[in-house]
Amino acid sequence: MPQLPAQRSWQKRLHEIIYEADTPAGKYFDIGLIMTIVASVIVVMIDSVASINAEYGLLLLSLEWLFTVIFTIEYIFRLLCVKSPWLYARSFFGVVDLLAILPSFIGLFFPGTQYLLSVRILRLLRIFRVLKLANYLTEAQTLRQALRASSRKISVFLLAVFAMVVILGSIMYLIEGPEHGFTNIPISVYWAIVTLTTVGYGDIAPMTALGKIIASLIMIIGYGIIAVPTGIVTVELSQAQKKRQKVSTQACPNCSSEGHDTDAVYCKYCGHKL
Amino acid sequence: MPQLPAQRSWQKRLHEIIYEADTPAGKYFDIGLIMTIVASVIVVMIDSVASINAEYGLLLLSLEWLFTVIFTIEYIFRLLCVKSPWLYARSFFGVVDLLAILPSFIGLFFPGTQYLLSVRILRLLRIFRVLKLANYLTEAQTLRQALRASSRKISVFLLAVFAMVVILGSIMYLIEGPEHGFTNIPISVYWAIVTLTTVGYGDIAPMTALGKIIASLIMIIGYGIIAVPTGIVTVELSQAQKKRQKVSTQACPNCSSEGHDTDAVYCKYCGHKL
Amino acid sequence: MPQLPAQRSWQKRLHEIIYEADTPAGKYFDIGLIMTIVASVIVVMIDSVASINAEYGLLLLSLEWLFTVIFTIEYIFRLLCVKSPWLYARSFFGVVDLLAILPSFIGLFFPGTQYLLSVRILRLLRIFRVLKLANYLTEAQTLRQALRASSRKISVFLLAVFAMVVILGSIMYLIEGPEHGFTNIPISVYWAIVTLTTVGYGDIAPMTALGKIIASLIMIIGYGIIAVPTGIVTVELSQAQKKRQKVSTQACPNCSSEGHDTDAVYCKYCGHKL
Amino acid sequence: MPQLPAQRSWQKRLHEIIYEADTPAGKYFDIGLIMTIVASVIVVMIDSVASINAEYGLLLLSLEWLFTVIFTIEYIFRLLCVKSPWLYARSFFGVVDLLAILPSFIGLFFPGTQYLLSVRILRLLRIFRVLKLANYLTEAQTLRQALRASSRKISVFLLAVFAMVVILGSIMYLIEGPEHGFTNIPISVYWAIVTLTTVGYGDIAPMTALGKIIASLIMIIGYGIIAVPTGIVTVELSQAQKKRQKVSTQACPNCSSEGHDTDAVYCKYCGHKL
Repeated sequence: MPQLPAQRSWQKRLHEIIYEADTPAGKYFDIGLIMTIVASVIVVMIDSVASINAEYGLLLLSLEWLFTVIFTIEYIFRLLCVKSPWLYARSFFGVVDLLAILPSFIGLFFPGTQYLLSVRILRLLRIFRVLKLANYLTEAQTLRQALRASSRKISVFLLAVFAMVVILGSIMYLIEGPEHGFTNIPISVYWAIVTLTTVGYGDIAPMTALGKIIASLIMIIGYGIIAVPTGIVTVELSQAQKKRQKVSTQACPNCSSEGHDTDAVYCKYCGHKL
Repeated sequence: MPQLPAQRSWQKRLHEIIYEADTPAGKYFDIGLIMTIVASVIVVMIDSVASINAEYGLLLLSLEWLFTVIFTIEYIFRLLCVKSPWLYARSFFGVVDLLAILPSFIGLFFPGTQYLLSVRILRLLRIFRVLKLANYLTEAQTLRQALRASSRKISVFLLAVFAMVVILGSIMYLIEGPEHGFTNIPISVYWAIVTLTTVGYGDIAPMTALGKIIASLIMIIGYGIIAVPTGIVTVELSQAQKKRQKVSTQACPNCSSEGHDTDAVYCKYCGHKL
Repeated sequence: MPQLPAQRSWQKRLHEIIYEADTPAGKYFDIGLIMTIVASVIVVMIDSVASINAEYGLLLLSLEWLFTVIFTIEYIFRLLCVKSPWLYARSFFGVVDLLAILPSFIGLFFPGTQYLLSVRILRLLRIFRVLKLANYLTEAQTLRQALRASSRKISVFLLAVFAMVVILGSIMYLIEGPEHGFTNIPISVYWAIVTLTTVGYGDIAPMTALGKIIASLIMIIGYGIIAVPTGIVTVELSQAQKKRQKVSTQACPNCSSEGHDTDAVYCKYCGHKL
Repeated sequence: MPQLPAQRSWQKRLHEIIYEADTPAGKYFDIGLIMTIVASVIVVMIDSVASINAEYGLLLLSLEWLFTVIFTIEYIFRLLCVKSPWLYARSFFGVVDLLAILPSFIGLFFPGTQYLLSVRILRLLRIFRVLKLANYLTEAQTLRQALRASSRKISVFLLAVFAMVVILGSIMYLIEGPEHGFTNIPISVYWAIVTLTTVGYGDIAPMTALGKIIASLIMIIGYGIIAVPTGIVTVELSQAQKKRQKVSTQACPNCSSEGHDTDAVYCKYCGHKL
């Protein structure tokens, strides 16, 4: 089959445009796609506003279909140009891309606007593709690296916070009781989270003297312990950055090892002069 | 008595399972216990919701008794396998473990559901055992070390915050007065804490022009000084981390220089083998 | 033309006073100008208070005109003493300076107080000139440098926050629905921002159990991820500071080692004079 | 006068007890004084609670007089044992100490309880003496040093925040207007501070779509820029700590200079081997 190499060639080209961002065409595609996604997200968002929906409902519906068609074509192309379409289809973004177009088509066969409105929101998940922009920035890598390094420490912190919030919420339930809005323990724990994170809606607030004292305690704890995740991330970030900088582009002329301190005179691995 | 060594042996084995986490059995026990505790905490929490209690009250009560039996057996085993049961019984977790099972048994002899509901919440204290999970992570140690090192500096900070809050709360009481919700000084100090920690319930809010100016001042102070505990913890955490990494107490046998990386083989200043 | 050098001379002198701050006259001008700006800003602000406007309206109006005259003279002088007046007029502060005086004059010819009140607020933009004070402090430069260096990383962070807020807001719209105040997606996203940033007005609050669970999640996320911008700025600031202090680009003439303190006289590695 | 040396001797002894904390007697005096101050502050605070005042008014009044007598004796002793009593009387704490006892005595001659209640709050200022406790901790010095070093940078930051808040508050006044609670510019600026600092009372909240967009912007700015003071304090604190630690107790055997890096081999000032 002499056509195969040619076919492979346009597949390769398409793959370059859709999945990579090294070529100008790939960059334009990425930017165009992200703008389309943002536009489709805005359409879904303002379509939920009753007054706008009443006036521009038809326009928004046609825009909706326009985006559905664009995303469908994109989805088909994505399937076509990868080596294993099934692998893409099962990947996170593969599922999200499908979920972004499915509801509109289902709506054609099973009418029920109330239900569709909800499912259409799945399209919003595509907005995470915007984060692909972050890949253009090398800074994102340092950030991601620091967050991954600190994730375990932050888990320990969150574990302690959860234990604290359950205990303090339950104590407040005993003190304040249902007559002051602390109707049950889950609600009281919710209130403790609202207070500890310094959000403070004010829909539930302590009324008794003892309740206010404990609430003050929770606030001061919450105000103080925010230092912990901040400290963790700062230290990890500082280290991720240092690793980048302190790598001292110098390579040992003898053993080619890298990662020497900037003030090193001799290679720390083989003793050769740098 | 030839049975003694045998008895010691099963005690030893039980101790390994219950108190240690080096053996697979010990790990399974820990994980199983923590899952049981979390389940029992959830039961106490949702039991306090009136609508759930009305419908599933009987189921929750039997689950409650199931957990009581499990925890009682665990408590007896804990007493059996330690060398000095009295020492365990008086320890923090010993008291908590007892408090977790006592209310249910007392309830059998002295009925009074209203009162029992409250005491049953003591079971929630067992949730702190969940923090034992943190021991599996070496990260928790760095965290604890940093918090202990910064605790004295944070005390100084909290002392200053308390003095500030008492003064500013009293000033607001003078300015706003009882007619605007600042009914007495303790309430005004409570309001100052709510504002300084940026929680801001909104149940009490200044109404006079001067009161709003001082409230703005408190907010900006609170917004700014959160930097202090954050800075303290960050610095201590950064140092706790450095101590771990930079340990290498190795000194060069030739030039006695220190501060070598842990992976260094040769002195970076004179090239001598470390 | 013999008058040209003389004219240049007073222009130069005026330029020194108005644009520079090296001479005592230049400093007095800067301080005087900033005090006038602050005074004019206060006049615009308190003029908007109905009760004050009713009583002191005439006084405030005359003060308003006094400031207009002062600023007009200043504007003319600024135009006169720069080499290319057109360049100044089109610059940011040139436009702001014009906008600060224009409304008052337009009001003379096109009466319409309601409209003028609004436009007069443009005068407030002049307050940014106060930031010129910051130039007296070398610290401001370190700060600006750190913020510029971290701006790209913070953009990545904000991008992720926006994606998160849109998704979480939409989910809350589906869960809570219009009957609990989440009337449409934009409102729900607004609520998600209010919650994530820990502001927490309380004008909209979740009512369903599931809504409260997700709200708790948003709060804890918001409470935790504030660590990210804080970490970024801290690291950049720490580096901007280090660059300032550790500048000493001196290398040892004997062993070529670098990284000496700025006050070092001898190389700390080989003892040779720097 | 042979009595003078003797008199000087008890003055000296009293001075040691009252002003210093090196001797056991001095420490006991400090702790006793601080406990008395805290007790007197609590009496003033709970005396303002109407229900408590109604029941225990007489007890609180006698306690009040007891504290007044104690503080008066202390004030007299302080005056007696310093070399220049006038200098102490004019110092900050001298004035505070006088203000703490004066209101009670004035009340004897000019009755007027309403007025007295207010002035008695001046006694609360004595609580700042509690901060003297901080002197026992060397940590407080590092903290104070870091805060002083960062105060200028934080001033620049606050200047920018103030300019921002005035502009954004005025814009919100134009957008929302008096009909939505933004009755005048000062109120709007107050709202902008409440929002930017993430306090969020909710007594005033934007109602228009544009107002909500700008409010979201203010929240995100406020959420982000808290990183700035945090970063500043962290960096300064880290440096204050480093100065303490990195001072490398090593002194040059030749020139006795200190402050060498821990990895220095030769004195950086005279080149002598360390």
